[in-house]
Amino acid sequence: MSAALGCWINGVSADALPADDRAVHYGDGVFETIVVHTGRPRFLEAHLARLSLGCTRLAIPFTALAELREEIAAAIAQAPPRAILKTIVTRGSAARRGYAPDGTESPRRLVSLWPSADVDFPGGVELRVATMRLGENPLLAGIKHLNRLENVLAAAELSKTDAFESLLLDSSGSLVCGSMSNVFLVREGQVVTPRIDRCGVAGVMRGIVLRECGVLGIHSLEARLSLEELFAADEAFITNARIGVVPVRRVGEHSFGMNKLALRLSAHIEPLDA
Amino acid sequence: MSAALGCWINGVSADALPADDRAVHYGDGVFETIVVHTGRPRFLEAHLARLSLGCTRLAIPFTALAELREEIAAAIAQAPPRAILKTIVTRGSAARRGYAPDGTESPRRLVSLWPSADVDFPGGVELRVATMRLGENPLLAGIKHLNRLENVLAAAELSKTDAFESLLLDSSGSLVCGSMSNVFLVREGQVVTPRIDRCGVAGVMRGIVLRECGVLGIHSLEARLSLEELFAADEAFITNARIGVVPVRRVGEHSFGMNKLALRLSAHIEPLDA
Repeated sequence: MSAALGCWINGVSADALPADDRAVHYGDGVFETIVVHTGRPRFLEAHLARLSLGCTRLAIPFTALAELREEIAAAIAQAPPRAILKTIVTRGSAARRGYAPDGTESPRRLVSLWPSADVDFPGGVELRVATMRLGENPLLAGIKHLNRLENVLAAAELSKTDAFESLLLDSSGSLVCGSMSNVFLVREGQVVTPRIDRCGVAGVMRGIVLRECGVLGIHSLEARLSLEELFAADEAFITNARIGVVPVRRVGEHSFGMNKLALRLSAHIEPLDA
Repeated sequence: MSAALGCWINGVSADALPADDRAVHYGDGVFETIVVHTGRPRFLEAHLARLSLGCTRLAIPFTALAELREEIAAAIAQAPPRAILKTIVTRGSAARRGYAPDGTESPRRLVSLWPSADVDFPGGVELRVATMRLGENPLLAGIKHLNRLENVLAAAELSKTDAFESLLLDSSGSLVCGSMSNVFLVREGQVVTPRIDRCGVAGVMRGIVLRECGVLGIHSLEARLSLEELFAADEAFITNARIGVVPVRRVGEHSFGMNKLALRLSAHIEPLDA
């Protein structure tokens, strides 16, 4: 029934999670989706750093990073050359009913392997602007927590269209990200991406792009951006761990002509894995 | 380990949920918390109506309401005279990885029984105002979905204080609800409660109060409300399915003197169960 190639909970092969886990009841946990390439988890350290940050922000007392590393390595030993590894850390089982954690929860680690489709986007991708706007809560912004109904709704809306990805605005009207990606624009040779301080996920690939801009001597910054500023840009690209850096050919009726910097970044980042 | 008195999945006693259920990965589902009183599920029809509304809003193809009714009845047959019955409907297992449902998911029903503590609040309760503000997304407002990290964070903040409940504002600054309750104010004999159209849960007891105001000839309305309007009110009360109608004695430094209408509504609603 499941499309997963394998699943382990706290290191033990398992296909079911205790029904009282707070992930089931409240989405109380965080996750990472990691590309496995010829037996290596790509950008593992960046993924684990964001996972840890998410636990800290949610006050999930996760101290088993060493165990999780071992479990990820054991799963990858069984993976095909290309796969997706997903790991979830939940707050664990509830000792009582109710929203408040009681502080005695024991976080639970899930590791699962999934098939990976080839990704290749010659000429870039076409985007649209979602009608749904993201709610703003700075306490939840940036981290990859398990409350992802906004992404589910955005992806459901997207799947009824021919576009590859939807761009999402926040409830104040600023550009934030895609339904499963981050977005960048290029203006006057400078790379700009929306601040992820009110909503959205700060993707691992987004962080790699910002870091590698520094390595390449390209000026980059995070800013509050409008859709109009995107349309006025010289080029645009989207990123995530799975697709890497992908030029945007068009957003709705607006076409982007160039993709020089996107292709340069993509070519530079593609061989990296740390 | 679990504090639950019993748990059933699709009618079968079970303590674990398939790890690929979308509730685990995205909080993709809805739930209800129902008071069981001497073998009867209180306000069952109102709970099931909201559950169905939530499934419709999230496009979860839930058609097994008859089965769920039977499973709730079977669980209650095993319940102590006073208990809490929680039911969750998830979108079901993912046929593939990714946010977008593919439309072939088979929703899953969870029913669990939990112990019930006596509730009695002589003289009313003391509230505080949460520092966290709720993100606004009209598509998710009102329904009781499984993305409840905001409630978890609010409850965690509350548990460090002596207050019974935290009042929550939305990111625009309007009063919305409590961390696990709805809020009402009384001014010039009229009952007013915040609109639940941008965020928050439209509680079953909130609906009962609005309905029974009509029965009692009390004028009631839903409105955009500020904290200042709450403080200017003659009285205030909070509601949820478990605690019923509970007068508010104080919010932070502000005291409420009267609780006449709250007590009248509480006395009127207490014997109802439909």
